[in-house]
Amino acid sequence: MQVALVGVSGYSGMTLYALLKQHPAVDQINLYGHAGSQPVALKTVAPMYQKETAVIRPFDAQAVMAQNDLIFFATSAGVTSQLALPLIAENFPVIDLSGDFRLSNPAQYTKWYHRAAAPAEALAKASYGLADFNPTLTTYVANPGCYATATLLGLAPLVQQQLINPNSIVVDAKSGLSGAGKKLTPTSQFAMVNDNLQLYKVNQHQHIPEVMQQLKKWWPAIPAIEFTTTLIPVTRGIMSSIYVKAAQATTTATILAAFEQVYGDQPFVQILPAGEMPTLKDVIGSNNCAIGVNVNPVTNTIFVVSVIDNLMKGAAGQAIQNFNAYFNFAPTTGLPTLPVFP
Amino acid sequence: MQVALVGVSGYSGMTLYALLKQHPAVDQINLYGHAGSQPVALKTVAPMYQKETAVIRPFDAQAVMAQNDLIFFATSAGVTSQLALPLIAENFPVIDLSGDFRLSNPAQYTKWYHRAAAPAEALAKASYGLADFNPTLTTYVANPGCYATATLLGLAPLVQQQLINPNSIVVDAKSGLSGAGKKLTPTSQFAMVNDNLQLYKVNQHQHIPEVMQQLKKWWPAIPAIEFTTTLIPVTRGIMSSIYVKAAQATTTATILAAFEQVYGDQPFVQILPAGEMPTLKDVIGSNNCAIGVNVNPVTNTIFVVSVIDNLMKGAAGQAIQNFNAYFNFAPTTGLPTLPVFP
Amino acid sequence: MQVALVGVSGYSGMTLYALLKQHPAVDQINLYGHAGSQPVALKTVAPMYQKETAVIRPFDAQAVMAQNDLIFFATSAGVTSQLALPLIAENFPVIDLSGDFRLSNPAQYTKWYHRAAAPAEALAKASYGLADFNPTLTTYVANPGCYATATLLGLAPLVQQQLINPNSIVVDAKSGLSGAGKKLTPTSQFAMVNDNLQLYKVNQHQHIPEVMQQLKKWWPAIPAIEFTTTLIPVTRGIMSSIYVKAAQATTTATILAAFEQVYGDQPFVQILPAGEMPTLKDVIGSNNCAIGVNVNPVTNTIFVVSVIDNLMKGAAGQAIQNFNAYFNFAPTTGLPTLPVFP
Amino acid sequence: MQVALVGVSGYSGMTLYALLKQHPAVDQINLYGHAGSQPVALKTVAPMYQKETAVIRPFDAQAVMAQNDLIFFATSAGVTSQLALPLIAENFPVIDLSGDFRLSNPAQYTKWYHRAAAPAEALAKASYGLADFNPTLTTYVANPGCYATATLLGLAPLVQQQLINPNSIVVDAKSGLSGAGKKLTPTSQFAMVNDNLQLYKVNQHQHIPEVMQQLKKWWPAIPAIEFTTTLIPVTRGIMSSIYVKAAQATTTATILAAFEQVYGDQPFVQILPAGEMPTLKDVIGSNNCAIGVNVNPVTNTIFVVSVIDNLMKGAAGQAIQNFNAYFNFAPTTGLPTLPVFP
Repeated sequence: MQVALVGVSGYSGMTLYALLKQHPAVDQINLYGHAGSQPVALKTVAPMYQKETAVIRPFDAQAVMAQNDLIFFATSAGVTSQLALPLIAENFPVIDLSGDFRLSNPAQYTKWYHRAAAPAEALAKASYGLADFNPTLTTYVANPGCYATATLLGLAPLVQQQLINPNSIVVDAKSGLSGAGKKLTPTSQFAMVNDNLQLYKVNQHQHIPEVMQQLKKWWPAIPAIEFTTTLIPVTRGIMSSIYVKAAQATTTATILAAFEQVYGDQPFVQILPAGEMPTLKDVIGSNNCAIGVNVNPVTNTIFVVSVIDNLMKGAAGQAIQNFNAYFNFAPTTGLPTLPVFP
Repeated sequence: MQVALVGVSGYSGMTLYALLKQHPAVDQINLYGHAGSQPVALKTVAPMYQKETAVIRPFDAQAVMAQNDLIFFATSAGVTSQLALPLIAENFPVIDLSGDFRLSNPAQYTKWYHRAAAPAEALAKASYGLADFNPTLTTYVANPGCYATATLLGLAPLVQQQLINPNSIVVDAKSGLSGAGKKLTPTSQFAMVNDNLQLYKVNQHQHIPEVMQQLKKWWPAIPAIEFTTTLIPVTRGIMSSIYVKAAQATTTATILAAFEQVYGDQPFVQILPAGEMPTLKDVIGSNNCAIGVNVNPVTNTIFVVSVIDNLMKGAAGQAIQNFNAYFNFAPTTGLPTLPVFP
Repeated sequence: MQVALVGVSGYSGMTLYALLKQHPAVDQINLYGHAGSQPVALKTVAPMYQKETAVIRPFDAQAVMAQNDLIFFATSAGVTSQLALPLIAENFPVIDLSGDFRLSNPAQYTKWYHRAAAPAEALAKASYGLADFNPTLTTYVANPGCYATATLLGLAPLVQQQLINPNSIVVDAKSGLSGAGKKLTPTSQFAMVNDNLQLYKVNQHQHIPEVMQQLKKWWPAIPAIEFTTTLIPVTRGIMSSIYVKAAQATTTATILAAFEQVYGDQPFVQILPAGEMPTLKDVIGSNNCAIGVNVNPVTNTIFVVSVIDNLMKGAAGQAIQNFNAYFNFAPTTGLPTLPVFP
Repeated sequence: MQVALVGVSGYSGMTLYALLKQHPAVDQINLYGHAGSQPVALKTVAPMYQKETAVIRPFDAQAVMAQNDLIFFATSAGVTSQLALPLIAENFPVIDLSGDFRLSNPAQYTKWYHRAAAPAEALAKASYGLADFNPTLTTYVANPGCYATATLLGLAPLVQQQLINPNSIVVDAKSGLSGAGKKLTPTSQFAMVNDNLQLYKVNQHQHIPEVMQQLKKWWPAIPAIEFTTTLIPVTRGIMSSIYVKAAQATTTATILAAFEQVYGDQPFVQILPAGEMPTLKDVIGSNNCAIGVNVNPVTNTIFVVSVIDNLMKGAAGQAIQNFNAYFNFAPTTGLPTLPVFP
């Protein structure tokens, strides 16, 4: 099998490349850049890949479809809304790590991404690949965002089973710097990040609408969520700290049982025993999501902590999980289930 | 003026020593250790103080009172509940950085600190020195805890003016490692802290009861708070991220005005303009507290972020602030109002 | 094939476990602890391995040999000098990650490790597994130390080809904290490591004698080396910065050619082009060693920088490399050649 | 006394502002920007200075001289070589933190800074303010570079007393990120700096010629030095690790005695006892330099470690030290001699 990877130079693209290299079903990875007309050696954009001989070629839709069985896009917002239209027209298999096809409503995309959306009929062909819920995948898979994945996995049992006051959801989400990509900004400089916490896009992060879209599918009564994002001085990792009011008096054991029921058979989701809370290091380097729960009977609050590696489960790892599902490979094929520790 | 400092070897004690060294009203700092019977050179417990000639002497209550005008205790929980009783009996001026005299109810102390409290009649003589509220200080000042200071300063205007649903307070607090002191534990090792987030004492942190005690003084209707604590990979700094439901529809501008009204004249409290959120680096190295506010009309949530340097405003800095108040020095005497940046 | 792993709870042991889990030739990993008499679930000593069902059993030499094809020891200094003797007596295959069998001279071991050495006749049966030099392996393989590996790979071409003044070797080596293991010490606490550099064991590190032993094999005229070690605020990674005086006037290109000649065919050693220097991130998470060279004609100095991941090439990765060589598997079997980036 | 500060927005400028604010002899700080024609509020370029009311005004040489007693320049290379000429013409007191006037030979400046030098006659009026050596200061003081300060303080006794082989000096220097300033570059991004070491400008750093200029003043026989620079994941701090061959067999005690003789009376230089090595945290936040020495009799190497805070002793702190010397204030006036710890 040959697969195409468009956008290898970003952090998600590089992580995806490394995963595809060790995937047993992938015979060849063909690299494409969405800009420029000359081939470029991979090692010139990724100097740490000294011994890799791969070359990045310009993207040409017909040629790419002719040579490959599936195309991964690890490109920035705004690229696939243009580039992928010929692929959608042909129903060619695509897994898109960008946000361009996650929202079925173009107006929502424009509101949160501040740019034009893909045509509504193209959006309608995409499926939202929240992999641990075994969604039915169309040929165009919109791979979920990193914050959205951590948050949805932490909220799913509570929302699906209507265990909470739907008006009470608060998410205090924390992310490492790789989530922001390679762009140079004052807030991503070491001297500003190290020994610091920086809030950004309070209630304005572009992953909020995909969270809402999915929550409403599970329980239409959810009106909105409070969602803040804080940059923490780590390279990888997302923690979603979730606070909700219980619909009725409950216990940690009851809520944990609900989580076990939903995730018990999922190889990548780990529900911690009562009294334990996950740390980022429990999952970094793996495709896992680890979840801890604490119920406070005094405040009637259910507190859920959900952690993932944003470049793995939050991007490239979940893309491989969707790839495995699309071709009916075993779920863990080519995916690490143990973190890189410490 | 001569002052006594008991417990210089801890992080708070060392910070207090450095502040006292440059305080214009302090002629001499006399150091005491609460254990051991032999004098020890300061530089043997603090090797970075190579040129300091100070000596740590054993604590003897009568001798210490005879030589000093005031005593600072920077000792661990459980020390002053024993050691300070003769000082209280004499109404000798004390500023106590430990938690031993913050809770007026001994049963609460025992519940949260898991040890015996000081006698109730001794506790009754202590005043809670939340310095930016200009409290009336008795001769025994219980200096507030670090989490409590950041959280109370962030909640005060909302609670005092009853702007919120009293049943809705959620605090997602983050702290650097110096808050946990010098004790060796697996969770404080670099390989576990670096690139990681670790929750601990969820709804069980010993600063919760002093927050509740103060909140109830401001508004007895507050029943309880949800309070979680997350260790972040920084050395210094506390951020309290506070979520509350507004009592009625409001705006960021309205809430900011309430904060400005309360803190406008306080030299150490900085209220940021709408649209800005504080970072730890805004305050580290200073005695400042910086506060940002965001009102979300969709969820009717008031989000407040309050940051301090846990060793300054959260410990030694606030102790100097109380020292200045006690002796009627100008509030900023000997205290940095600019952070050490970057 | 079944393999035994003794000492899984340390950082090297956990890394080795993760590598063995994905090694295609390993059917089963049997875990043993060198102390205690009761079986313990792996996940109780490694909480991030929630879904692993493996159990750690007490070590019994005869039972272990009966069940396994090879034994890995990831134990502390002083353990295999006792525990491995029955295995050596039977010529049973062992790969020992500890330092106990690296030095053929027992007096040297005692001098540098401050403890009793294994018997000289046992030491004589061990081979030093500096894997990228394809050594002839005996049944007892002493896996090299992390500092030694980075330093020897950086010095080998210069020493083997006698390109330098043998009396001029200076090594300024830097290491992350995982190299020091899990032991709790004041110098390994986050508040002391973060934002800091700490020197330790200047000219006294226990990896110095194994470097000297190997250098003298390559060129007996090497009398001694200057070797300092600095703890840096990173979790993983070693950088050996090596300064030597050239034997005669030379150029960067000439020295790089010598390195290419030695390492050109080695899959894990990357020689960077002139003008580039390796960073830790070039190798972390991989079994690679990356090397850069700069010749200063003004000072006649050859400067070599050699970097590795101390838990991979410096421990568990090189152990797998030796395992592959011992059983004639392809060198890269089960080993990552791409770093985890960023 | 009124002082001018040109270039407050950089890291050195902000540090200098904070120091001047608490200097007892400074009544007013007047801020100037070297570009732009409109006044700008300080807090708009330094948001953490919320309560500061200072305004940055355009620089006009005559007006600045009229209002101030001395001018500090904390500007980038290339600014004062133009801007300061009218001040030099008037012999107006200047302390220049940039590198423009450190090298008396214009050709050397052009070679290492890759830009045009100030006129030779202007350069001739400047004095090199290596403050701990009590230099004779002219009205134009060139404040030394950070790497140069750490390295020269570590080498001075050895070179002045000709205790070493002059051809053997190797300096492995490490620096935190604030030394590189605020400029956005890929190598200064958090995701590249965190958990990493990056070499840069090997034997090409622009502080090398000022080190050589001073060493040759002390001992003209010094021909050259090997000097490498490594970026470490800390915000502040420089460590110069210096290796030299002893001129004749010696001991740590003998070399320490030489250092004590040179620095014994200097309030900011701390010579550590035999067996101890300085860490960055020994000096961060202070104007101190801490030095440790180790003599290896086997390799005949003298190893010296010298650490400073690059923004204090390496920039703003030394500038205040020169300011104190110029006006005959006590050396420690307005300067912290204790580090901010931890």
